[in-house]
Amino acid sequence: MSTEPAHPTAAPRTVAQAGEDGVLAIIMAELGDQARPANDLVTMTLPPGDDAAVLQLPDDGAPARIVLTTDTLSQDQDFRLEWWGPQDQGLPAGRAVGLKAAAQNLSDLNAMAATPISLLVSLTLPGATPLDWVRGFYGGLAEALRTPGAQGCVLAGGDLGSGPGISVSITAVGRLPGSRQPLTRVGARAGDQVAVSAGLGRAAAGLALLEAGHDCAGELAGLRDAQIAPRPVLTTGAQAVQAGATAGMDLSDGLLRDAGRLARASGVRIRIDEAPLREHTRALEPAAAALHLPEAQTLHWAAAGGEDYALLATFPAEAALPEGFCRVGEVISADEPHESEDADGAPEVIFESAIDELGWDSMRA
Amino acid sequence: MSTEPAHPTAAPRTVAQAGEDGVLAIIMAELGDQARPANDLVTMTLPPGDDAAVLQLPDDGAPARIVLTTDTLSQDQDFRLEWWGPQDQGLPAGRAVGLKAAAQNLSDLNAMAATPISLLVSLTLPGATPLDWVRGFYGGLAEALRTPGAQGCVLAGGDLGSGPGISVSITAVGRLPGSRQPLTRVGARAGDQVAVSAGLGRAAAGLALLEAGHDCAGELAGLRDAQIAPRPVLTTGAQAVQAGATAGMDLSDGLLRDAGRLARASGVRIRIDEAPLREHTRALEPAAAALHLPEAQTLHWAAAGGEDYALLATFPAEAALPEGFCRVGEVISADEPHESEDADGAPEVIFESAIDELGWDSMRA
Repeated sequence: MSTEPAHPTAAPRTVAQAGEDGVLAIIMAELGDQARPANDLVTMTLPPGDDAAVLQLPDDGAPARIVLTTDTLSQDQDFRLEWWGPQDQGLPAGRAVGLKAAAQNLSDLNAMAATPISLLVSLTLPGATPLDWVRGFYGGLAEALRTPGAQGCVLAGGDLGSGPGISVSITAVGRLPGSRQPLTRVGARAGDQVAVSAGLGRAAAGLALLEAGHDCAGELAGLRDAQIAPRPVLTTGAQAVQAGATAGMDLSDGLLRDAGRLARASGVRIRIDEAPLREHTRALEPAAAALHLPEAQTLHWAAAGGEDYALLATFPAEAALPEGFCRVGEVISADEPHESEDADGAPEVIFESAIDELGWDSMRA
Repeated sequence: MSTEPAHPTAAPRTVAQAGEDGVLAIIMAELGDQARPANDLVTMTLPPGDDAAVLQLPDDGAPARIVLTTDTLSQDQDFRLEWWGPQDQGLPAGRAVGLKAAAQNLSDLNAMAATPISLLVSLTLPGATPLDWVRGFYGGLAEALRTPGAQGCVLAGGDLGSGPGISVSITAVGRLPGSRQPLTRVGARAGDQVAVSAGLGRAAAGLALLEAGHDCAGELAGLRDAQIAPRPVLTTGAQAVQAGATAGMDLSDGLLRDAGRLARASGVRIRIDEAPLREHTRALEPAAAALHLPEAQTLHWAAAGGEDYALLATFPAEAALPEGFCRVGEVISADEPHESEDADGAPEVIFESAIDELGWDSMRA
C-alpha cells in the first residue's frame, strides 16, 4: 500500500488519499447517466450502491430480472500465501481461495435474495503457480456451488491471464424467481428490529491469528477458516424475505460501518446494542487469549471486523426472526434527537461502547 | 513472467510449463458437470470454449438468452504505464486502459452477435494511483459505450480494491435479440470463404513500436492506438449473421492460432492465403521501417499478431461478404489429403509462407 501521508486539508490527489467513498464519487460523476439508465434494452431497477445490480429485460414475455455482482480477491490484499508457509492450514491455499472467492460473490446475491445461476471467473496467475493450486482453486469453487442455495449455479466461463500476483475476479449472476422483490438497503423503518444471520467477528479474529503467525490449532481452527475459507449460509436472504424483512445487505466491512450504509440508504438511524454483541464475542475469546489481547478486542472484532459474509437485515418489530438470526439493535427515527449529536448532526449508527467505530476502507492506506 | 525453463519431456508442474491450453484442461477436469449442465434454473446452450457463454433461462414466457463474457487487463502484462512515461501518447493512460478493457469484452459479445446490455467493472488500484487516472478510465469506458452497437449498454456495478499493480476485470452481459442464433466457432463447412472484419496486425505493430520506445508520431499514431486504445467496430457480428455466416469468433490471439481453434471446433481445416494478407501488411510497413525490421515482419504481425479485436468468420462460397470484410482464405475438408501431412496428420491451418505459425500464449513464459 502507499506510504504517502494523507493531507486531509488539501484536495485528495491519489486513490489512497480519497478513500473508497471518494473514488466512488468520482466514478459516479464521470459516468453520469451511463450508470443509471433505463432504455429499450435494459432497465436498472435499483440506484447504484447495493450489493448487486438488478437488471430488467423489458422485452421478455414475463420480465426476466437478472442480478449481477462482481468482486476481486488479490494476493497480499485479501489473502497471503505466507499463511500457508510453514503451517498446514487444514486446507490447501488454492482450495481456500476458491471457497472465499465464491463466497464473496454468492453472499452478495444471497443478500439480495437472488438465486445464483452462474459464475464467471477471471484468474490472473504468476507463471510459477503450481498446477495443484489451480486444481485446488476450482475444487473450492465446485464445493461452494454444492452449498444449499447455490446448487444449480454453473460456471459459465472465464479468462486466464498472467501477472505478478494471484488475482481472482468473479462475477456472479442471479435471478429473482417469480415475483420475488430483491432485498435492498432501502426500506428500514423506525421501530424495526436489526438482526444478523451469523456469528460476527470470526473472520477478523481469524485474520489476527494468521497475521500473528499463530498455528490455529484446536478450537481456533474455526476462526481461521472463517477468514481463509468462509462458507456462508446462502439461504438466509430468501428466509429474510419470507419473514418480512424490510431491508438487508451483506455484512462485509464490519457491522457498524455496514449498518451506517443501510441507515443512510433508508433515511433512518440504527442503534446497535452491546448486550447482544456479547453473545458473539464469547466465541472470539480464545483468539484474544491466544494473542494476549485485552478482552475488549473481541467486541472490536464483532462490531467492526470485516468479511463476516452474514446478512444484516431489518424486520418489523412484531416479526419472528428466521432461525439462525440474532437481534443486535433497533432502527430509530432520523428525527429523534440524540445526545451524541454535534454540529454535523447525529451519527447514523449509535453504539454506546468503549470501542471506536472502526471499519475497514479497502482503498485508504 | 516466470524464468523457469520449460521441461517438455517431464509432466508440467507450473502454470507456465502447462500453458493456457494445459491449464484449461485441468480446469475442465476439476469442474466436470458444473461447467456444462442443464438444470431447472439455467441451460448453457453452448459447450465451453467460445468467446462468451450463452445462458437460457427456461422459466420465462419467451426464453431469455443472456450472453456472458469476462476478461482481465493487468498492468505490465496487457499494458505498461511506462508507455506514457516521457511521451504523451495522444490520450492519457487511464482513458486508453478504459477503452481497451471495454473493447476486449464488447468485442467478445460482438463475435457472438449479441447486443451488449451491461458491464460490471472490478478495478484493483495501487493507493498511489492519481485520481485523474480513475477519471480517465471511466471516461474511456463511457466513450466505448457510445460506440454504435454498444449504445444502451449500462455500467451496472463493480468493485474497488487495492493491489500492487493496476488490474481491470470486466464482465460484459449481452442478449440475443428475438430469435437470433449466436455466432459460434462451430459450423464452418468445406468450401466456405474465410474473412476478417478489420485490418490485421495493427495492434502487434503498435506494441512493437511502444516496446521499442518509439515516439509513434504521424502515420504511426494509428498503429499505437490500435494497441493502447482499440476501438473495434461492434456491429460486425450482427452483419455477419445477416450475411449468412456459418461460424465466427473474436480475433484476439492472432489469425493463424484463432483460425486453428475455429477449424478444430468445426471439424474442418482452413487455408489462409498470403496474397490477401498482403492487403493488410501494407499499412504495417511504416512500423517495420521505423524499427529497421525486415519487411517479412509485417506478414508475421498480420498472420500471428494478437489483439486485433476483429471478427473472423466463415461464409458460404456464394455469399456476398458484408461491407468492411476481407476474404483471407478458404475452409477445406479435414479429409482432403495435404502434402504437409506428417505422423500427426495434417495441420488444422495451412499457411504456405516463410514465417512460422506463431501466436501468443498468455500463460506460457
